[in-house]
Amino acid sequence: MLIDERLIRLALEEDIGSGDITTEALVEGPVSATARIIAKEPLVLAGLEATRQVFLVLDPAVRFESDCRDGHRVEAPCTVATVSAGLGALLTGERTALNFLQHLSGIATFTRRFVDKVRGTKVRLTDTRKTTPGWRRLEKYAVRMGGGYNHRFGLHDGILIKDNHIKACGGIAVAVERARARKGHLLRIEVETKTLDEVREALENNVDVIMLDNMGLDAIQKAVNLIGGRALVEVSGGVHLDTVAELAATGVDLISIGALTHSARAVDISMDLVSIDEDRKRSL
Amino acid sequence: MLIDERLIRLALEEDIGSGDITTEALVEGPVSATARIIAKEPLVLAGLEATRQVFLVLDPAVRFESDCRDGHRVEAPCTVATVSAGLGALLTGERTALNFLQHLSGIATFTRRFVDKVRGTKVRLTDTRKTTPGWRRLEKYAVRMGGGYNHRFGLHDGILIKDNHIKACGGIAVAVERARARKGHLLRIEVETKTLDEVREALENNVDVIMLDNMGLDAIQKAVNLIGGRALVEVSGGVHLDTVAELAATGVDLISIGALTHSARAVDISMDLVSIDEDRKRSL
Amino acid sequence: MLIDERLIRLALEEDIGSGDITTEALVEGPVSATARIIAKEPLVLAGLEATRQVFLVLDPAVRFESDCRDGHRVEAPCTVATVSAGLGALLTGERTALNFLQHLSGIATFTRRFVDKVRGTKVRLTDTRKTTPGWRRLEKYAVRMGGGYNHRFGLHDGILIKDNHIKACGGIAVAVERARARKGHLLRIEVETKTLDEVREALENNVDVIMLDNMGLDAIQKAVNLIGGRALVEVSGGVHLDTVAELAATGVDLISIGALTHSARAVDISMDLVSIDEDRKRSL
Amino acid sequence: MLIDERLIRLALEEDIGSGDITTEALVEGPVSATARIIAKEPLVLAGLEATRQVFLVLDPAVRFESDCRDGHRVEAPCTVATVSAGLGALLTGERTALNFLQHLSGIATFTRRFVDKVRGTKVRLTDTRKTTPGWRRLEKYAVRMGGGYNHRFGLHDGILIKDNHIKACGGIAVAVERARARKGHLLRIEVETKTLDEVREALENNVDVIMLDNMGLDAIQKAVNLIGGRALVEVSGGVHLDTVAELAATGVDLISIGALTHSARAVDISMDLVSIDEDRKRSL
Amino acid sequence: MLIDERLIRLALEEDIGSGDITTEALVEGPVSATARIIAKEPLVLAGLEATRQVFLVLDPAVRFESDCRDGHRVEAPCTVATVSAGLGALLTGERTALNFLQHLSGIATFTRRFVDKVRGTKVRLTDTRKTTPGWRRLEKYAVRMGGGYNHRFGLHDGILIKDNHIKACGGIAVAVERARARKGHLLRIEVETKTLDEVREALENNVDVIMLDNMGLDAIQKAVNLIGGRALVEVSGGVHLDTVAELAATGVDLISIGALTHSARAVDISMDLVSIDEDRKRSL
Amino acid sequence: MLIDERLIRLALEEDIGSGDITTEALVEGPVSATARIIAKEPLVLAGLEATRQVFLVLDPAVRFESDCRDGHRVEAPCTVATVSAGLGALLTGERTALNFLQHLSGIATFTRRFVDKVRGTKVRLTDTRKTTPGWRRLEKYAVRMGGGYNHRFGLHDGILIKDNHIKACGGIAVAVERARARKGHLLRIEVETKTLDEVREALENNVDVIMLDNMGLDAIQKAVNLIGGRALVEVSGGVHLDTVAELAATGVDLISIGALTHSARAVDISMDLVSIDEDRKRSL
Repeated sequence: MLIDERLIRLALEEDIGSGDITTEALVEGPVSATARIIAKEPLVLAGLEATRQVFLVLDPAVRFESDCRDGHRVEAPCTVATVSAGLGALLTGERTALNFLQHLSGIATFTRRFVDKVRGTKVRLTDTRKTTPGWRRLEKYAVRMGGGYNHRFGLHDGILIKDNHIKACGGIAVAVERARARKGHLLRIEVETKTLDEVREALENNVDVIMLDNMGLDAIQKAVNLIGGRALVEVSGGVHLDTVAELAATGVDLISIGALTHSARAVDISMDLVSIDEDRKRSL
Repeated sequence: MLIDERLIRLALEEDIGSGDITTEALVEGPVSATARIIAKEPLVLAGLEATRQVFLVLDPAVRFESDCRDGHRVEAPCTVATVSAGLGALLTGERTALNFLQHLSGIATFTRRFVDKVRGTKVRLTDTRKTTPGWRRLEKYAVRMGGGYNHRFGLHDGILIKDNHIKACGGIAVAVERARARKGHLLRIEVETKTLDEVREALENNVDVIMLDNMGLDAIQKAVNLIGGRALVEVSGGVHLDTVAELAATGVDLISIGALTHSARAVDISMDLVSIDEDRKRSL
Repeated sequence: MLIDERLIRLALEEDIGSGDITTEALVEGPVSATARIIAKEPLVLAGLEATRQVFLVLDPAVRFESDCRDGHRVEAPCTVATVSAGLGALLTGERTALNFLQHLSGIATFTRRFVDKVRGTKVRLTDTRKTTPGWRRLEKYAVRMGGGYNHRFGLHDGILIKDNHIKACGGIAVAVERARARKGHLLRIEVETKTLDEVREALENNVDVIMLDNMGLDAIQKAVNLIGGRALVEVSGGVHLDTVAELAATGVDLISIGALTHSARAVDISMDLVSIDEDRKRSL
Repeated sequence: MLIDERLIRLALEEDIGSGDITTEALVEGPVSATARIIAKEPLVLAGLEATRQVFLVLDPAVRFESDCRDGHRVEAPCTVATVSAGLGALLTGERTALNFLQHLSGIATFTRRFVDKVRGTKVRLTDTRKTTPGWRRLEKYAVRMGGGYNHRFGLHDGILIKDNHIKACGGIAVAVERARARKGHLLRIEVETKTLDEVREALENNVDVIMLDNMGLDAIQKAVNLIGGRALVEVSGGVHLDTVAELAATGVDLISIGALTHSARAVDISMDLVSIDEDRKRSL
Repeated sequence: MLIDERLIRLALEEDIGSGDITTEALVEGPVSATARIIAKEPLVLAGLEATRQVFLVLDPAVRFESDCRDGHRVEAPCTVATVSAGLGALLTGERTALNFLQHLSGIATFTRRFVDKVRGTKVRLTDTRKTTPGWRRLEKYAVRMGGGYNHRFGLHDGILIKDNHIKACGGIAVAVERARARKGHLLRIEVETKTLDEVREALENNVDVIMLDNMGLDAIQKAVNLIGGRALVEVSGGVHLDTVAELAATGVDLISIGALTHSARAVDISMDLVSIDEDRKRSL
Repeated sequence: MLIDERLIRLALEEDIGSGDITTEALVEGPVSATARIIAKEPLVLAGLEATRQVFLVLDPAVRFESDCRDGHRVEAPCTVATVSAGLGALLTGERTALNFLQHLSGIATFTRRFVDKVRGTKVRLTDTRKTTPGWRRLEKYAVRMGGGYNHRFGLHDGILIKDNHIKACGGIAVAVERARARKGHLLRIEVETKTLDEVREALENNVDVIMLDNMGLDAIQKAVNLIGGRALVEVSGGVHLDTVAELAATGVDLISIGALTHSARAVDISMDLVSIDEDRKRSL
């Protein structure tokens, strides 16, 4: 998992600005210390590497050790990592580091709850492009850590013809024809539909994937039957924890859920200073 | 409200990457169009300017018109803005623009729900530094639009001595003494306390603000009485929609709520293409 | 066609550095002028927009007019654009602007020569990822202007299992199985093969596209017959102007040619100053 | 040779984008491997350091070993470097790394062919500013590796009065006078001429270097005789492999050749995976 | 002290540009060397870390050793640091490194001269925001090294209502009222005054700090008496080495001095090559 | 004069950080205003364009009008520019804009004082590379505005062999020989000398320019006589306002003065708000 360093630096810059005045006033000279990062509620971890990198920017000599891995479910309270670094780096980086870990673990935890509801079925739960701007790759990574799959990473790696595209072209047939003529040979075509008539039109145009957008359960079942395996079927829109299982039971191939990334709450994780290295303190 | 252009560009880059292949395949030549941005649920708006800037990067000639302003509460369905731009710019920018608007309005809406609970009291509801990394200024702006106040913007504009600082110094007295000797003359000193003993120690050291961290309602009331106006009092930790009113009734000055920024869900907003400018289409 | 402004700026920075000392010494005060950009040999144009942007960075008030469009074939000599701007901007930007236009038109011209050889067949000529680092999108755009198609834009928008991947996995079957389990549902799978045995193995694993890498004409014909339409067929490696037609005649679907982007020579284009705006000169 | 890291990163970003989906799907866990970089045709090497840096960005622990040096001529096939790194880094970086090495070695190889033609004469073969935008320093380095010399690096480090400058000033005399009055004391003055009359005018103004632009062989010989050592003489325009020797024989001091950088074809170099580190594989 | 790497890189880029042509021509192959950085006049040191980082960018293996620390007063001549690195890195980085050290030590030295004048009083000498653009944090650091205190770091970390603000609001009372209603609870309010009437108005509005701007000594004494400890008092404007002591004697709390950062002259520091590592030279 | 926008943005970012809290609290809604920029002491102007650009970043609609030009000498008090923009932009940008103008005009003013001392002689006064890091081009521009000339812009545009280079090569002869063999044909060679023996050695090696470094007046006169016009002569080191005229009288060609850029004090310039646009205020 490659972290976009720009986001780490943006985060530290916006928090530190012209300086961490509290820490600079209170900490004298170079002192090393150790802190524990502690899960305060049961959660699925995601973001250990981003967390480590926050401290790494502040102290290149940081030691960051963990018995956990991203994707692990941990009970609470549980020490998920131990960080040894300059005392100043620990105090200055604490909030930014936790902000990464709480947000990403929040997404992984929320995703796992959905995944548990459909365990045993063939359906893939996927994210959407409804991610927090600047966080696309990290949030999609957290979804995978929760057991979900990724839909498109962006506009560049998949053809998805949506309602506004269809309006712009004057119909599904024209849109699909243009896409087929110009797209790369390694890509499939997905079309968004809102009615059974549109599903039929998509089928007639031999699309590879049909998205059923915001349809009711009955309509979805009818669409699945109509399609009959001639295209992959994706359900999208208004999926909740208490409806996802019955959606899966209709036989659809994919269920995409925007809430995984745009509405997961942060989980509770904190950092506690456990020791200050007196020896090093004395010698400096 | 100044938008950090880096975040807008990061967001567009991560979504567009090597190109919006669907739109490039479907849209031929320069065609202008108009779309409506529509609130699909009641909400408090925040982020119109960021939304506009997303389209502006893609089409410098965009017209973005709105009868609403950030901070307004709107019912649903309601057109909150009308965007006229190149058809390609509209289709390519839709998701990124909505991601900004849905996230920020989500925070404003959630904040307003808290604010409504304490209306009529003197208490200020504030955010924390538990923001999404890279989004500090935008999310704190959304809190203001919801009727909340901002706590520190970062480590640079306020002295807040927290538990790990106190551990690092060996006690409140030492920490406060050091902070007072070195801080700028325009800054006050706030200290985090977890017990009434710590509250007493903070008072003895003449701090300006005392934070009561994760205390129960009884302890909070005792602390308020003990302090008796000699310092401002901030409550922090575990504040919920159904507890905020009784916290306010204790007479504290400030209640800070991390959930405002780290756990607000996105609100539902969509974009509908309403017309394609045929004249311009023909001439090009 | 979106230009990555970073490349334009990198190009101007490296040429101008601490200043265009010749122009600064010779040109006094603000004087406007007009220059013609002239094709000195027959060519297919590509890069007018990048050319315009070079001058735009140096003079926001530039007027850049052209009766040509990218993709047009022009005879020589022929004025392909007229640029009016500050005299200093014209003199300073000339070389950088021409460097863009000569390089991109060189690629479009070279591509068109290949395309003319296979006109009337169903085959698609495509580029590869053998582009000049930093120039991927611009060079692939020039290929399209020459009548070619684009293969993958990068490692992110297509699954292509190459020889080193197969070695790393221990065989085609394992590689295809892993790719199928983890790839997004909008992507197809292409496998590189070097022998007919590998073609058979790829077919057995139901891949979507089979690349025949560096095979002779006979082997290619056998492979096409063997595949019999069950997968798309791409030929790659050692394609030249005098062999491309017979390759197309084998019935393959795609021929990819690295030379289109890595070995096209620049075409000859120059800029001539045609007038200096005396009125403006006098008034300043 | 200092590499502009921006170009390395630009190159990797454009190739990797949102992720190397093939490698991510096929490679599990951290595995180290070794690959050979192999010249497939005789060539003059240039770009080993840029090649190394591509892998270094992807794996800070890469080992890159070579018995060759930039500027060496190698026969084919020949292993020019051995790279040990994470298997993922090797697979992801292969194409970008080779794109650097093939392009730069192509320039060095092409330059050496020209240099071999004039061996034994006093003439210096130089490049021009007709380089690929963004690649100025790297391509000029490759020219040196091929045995050529560098002309100006940009507009900042030399006074060269060209045709459009002369038009802008109204004549050679005015242009030279202005340049002499304002230029730094460490710089010489070169003037471009197209006729013997212009050569005479340049001589009368005591310029340091006279460029003969696009003149025929006879005119060049007359100009050399006329100048008689009172200025350095540079020939420019339309220089080819089969004309460079007779140009050198006229006694000119410098011959500048745009084709060295804008029209050298890439040379054939590939990368082969030679081993996967099973031990490390098992332990992870 | 965190250095903004952008400034270090900006500085090296502007000095090196397309290459250090003297060093590249004179130094062959990798040779290591050692140089001494020598104070040529008595001074207070500031900027050792920035100096080290200049060489670090050019040679990651640099060794930079010093018996001094920022804030130390050194006599002349005195070796303040010894640098071992590649010979090329030493020659190329010398000027840029010294530019940092001479400028920052100049500020520290100038500040110390002021501080020595008020030693024994309670007054704090502070800088202002009149710093060299791009250098705010470094110059304010140098002031601290000289024994001064920092005023605001910027517009973000303190409320200071100046003359133009008062004009914009129509008076002190309105301005203070608005600031109090909207400012964060951790900040105090300072108001700039030019007359005793304004001092009275500020007092009536209970501001925390009153700045006396460009007042004469008599007026300052009257203001101090009038304020009588009810607010901190800052003097600003026209403070010189020969007036600072009598200003301090009036009993003001703070004296701010723009000249500390905008008018300190550079101190004289040079670098001498002391040895070239012959062994390493031979082996390379 | 091209401004490096990075420096303008760096300057504004460091001053504004998370927001101009005073202005944001005091100014309500969009109000336009006009301010005057006033010279408070006699000075030579430099930096009007940088000043304008500071406001331009904050308000793209700014109007910046001036009857003065860079290089003009103005008496005091004198309005040097009038700025109309949003009231917030004026208040927020004031200090940063003045910091640019005061620093650059300080350099131009100091340079003019030196230039006035040698008026009527043939000598050129030049700057050095002892500039404030990040400010090279701006400060050298200010020197020109004061009537001085520029020495090298950096290490890239001139060969200057200094003491450490000579040590590294083992002598002047070797250094000059290497430089001549490798330098571009448009560059001259300058050598730094400290004794008459070194001057003789430089002359024997036919260098173009000889720098006399830190020599006394007598030695300088002897060196000038010895050189006798066979090379340009530059004096460097310890030049002051009261010695520059007698140095010029020795007949040297160039006198370089580091103090022009590293030790000029800022001149006194302020900004006064003169009107607030009530009409616009009312309508908003």
